[in-house]
Amino acid sequence: MDDVLTLHEDPRSGNCYKIRLTAALLGLPIKRVQYDIMRGETRTREFLLNVNSNGRIPVLQIGDRFLPESNAACWYLAEDTELIPQDRFMRADMLRWMFFEQYNHEPNIATLRFWFAFVGEAHLSAEQIAQVPAKRIAGEDALAIMDNHLKNKDWFVGDAPSVADISLYAYTHVCEAGGFRLQDRPNVCAWLERVAGLPGYVPMD
Amino acid sequence: MDDVLTLHEDPRSGNCYKIRLTAALLGLPIKRVQYDIMRGETRTREFLLNVNSNGRIPVLQIGDRFLPESNAACWYLAEDTELIPQDRFMRADMLRWMFFEQYNHEPNIATLRFWFAFVGEAHLSAEQIAQVPAKRIAGEDALAIMDNHLKNKDWFVGDAPSVADISLYAYTHVCEAGGFRLQDRPNVCAWLERVAGLPGYVPMD
Repeated sequence: MDDVLTLHEDPRSGNCYKIRLTAALLGLPIKRVQYDIMRGETRTREFLLNVNSNGRIPVLQIGDRFLPESNAACWYLAEDTELIPQDRFMRADMLRWMFFEQYNHEPNIATLRFWFAFVGEAHLSAEQIAQVPAKRIAGEDALAIMDNHLKNKDWFVGDAPSVADISLYAYTHVCEAGGFRLQDRPNVCAWLERVAGLPGYVPMD
Repeated sequence: MDDVLTLHEDPRSGNCYKIRLTAALLGLPIKRVQYDIMRGETRTREFLLNVNSNGRIPVLQIGDRFLPESNAACWYLAEDTELIPQDRFMRADMLRWMFFEQYNHEPNIATLRFWFAFVGEAHLSAEQIAQVPAKRIAGEDALAIMDNHLKNKDWFVGDAPSVADISLYAYTHVCEAGGFRLQDRPNVCAWLERVAGLPGYVPMD
C-alpha cells in the first residue's frame, strides 16, 4: 500500500472506528482528520465538494481518491490479507454479515446510541420518539440473531476473525449507550472479548 | 460453477430481482423457489430453520449452502467476471455504491414502493404514515446523488457495467410505484435505459 491513507472521521462514530480498527489490526498507518457531525462540519460546501457529496463520514482517502462507506473502506484495506477469507463462499458470507450490519444492525443500534447518548432524550423530535420502539425491537432482533449465530462459533465466518467481526463489533460493544443490554447475550459477550484480545486491537476513543 | 443455484424469492421484490438479473447477465442458470411475503411464508418455522433465521428473502442457495443478503449473493455470482472491476480501488468503490444502496436507497425507495403499491395507503399504520415524509426526502436525496454522479458517466464505477449498477437498478427502475418521479432525474433515466439494453437482460416479473 504505497498511497497515504487518511481517515475523515468523527471519533465518536462506530462507522469511523471500524476503519481505524481494521488498519490497526493490519498494522497500517493511517492519518486522522476529525469533524464534529453535531456542528454540521460534514455538511459544509467544502466537505460536500471535496470529500463526500453524501455529507457523511467516514471517508477513507487513499492518496487523492476518496472512498465513502465504512464497510467498503474496511474491505479496501483488508483485501489480500488474513482478514478476508480465501474461500469464495466464505468471502460472500462475510459480505452478507456486513450488509446485515448496515441494514439490520446500524440503523437501529447505532441510531439509538446516537439519539440517547449524544442528542439526548430531551432533545429528540416527536418523529424520532415515535421510531424508538420499532428500532428497539429491530435492534434486539439483530443482537438475538448474532447471539444465536455465535452459539458454537468463535467468529462470524469460518474459524478466524474477518472484517465481518470488525464491522459488527463497532456498534455492538457500545450498544448499552443506546439502551440495549449485553448481559442477555452471552455468546455476543464472549465474542466481544475475543475481538478486544486480537493483536493490534485499539479501543474506540 | 458446479453447484446448483437456487433463488429463494418473492418475485415482486427488487432485492430478489437483483440476483436473477446478475445470473441472467452472466448466463448462469438459476432455479426459483417462490414465497409470498404478504402471507408470511418466510416466517414459517421451516423457513427460519432451513433457509434464513433472519426470516428474510432473497436467499441464494448454492448446493446445500445458503447465502442471505441480495448484494452478497450478487457478489458471489459475479466474482471473477467482467461485472466486478479488476482494479482494487474500483472494486471497493463498487461495494461503496452497494452499501449506499442498502443504507440510503432501499430503506426509503423500496419501502415506500412496498407500502404504497403492495400494502396500500389505506392499510398503513400511524407509525408508518409518520415515517413517509422522512423516507420521501431521504429517497429523493439518494436519487439526486445518483443523478449527480451519472452526469458525465455511463456507469457507477469506471466505464463498464458492474454489480453496483444491477444493485441500484432494481428498485430505481420501479421507484415511481412509491411516488418518486423519474422525469426529474434525466441522467438516471438514461442510465436505466443502458442497463435495460445489456445483453442477457431480463425484466422484473
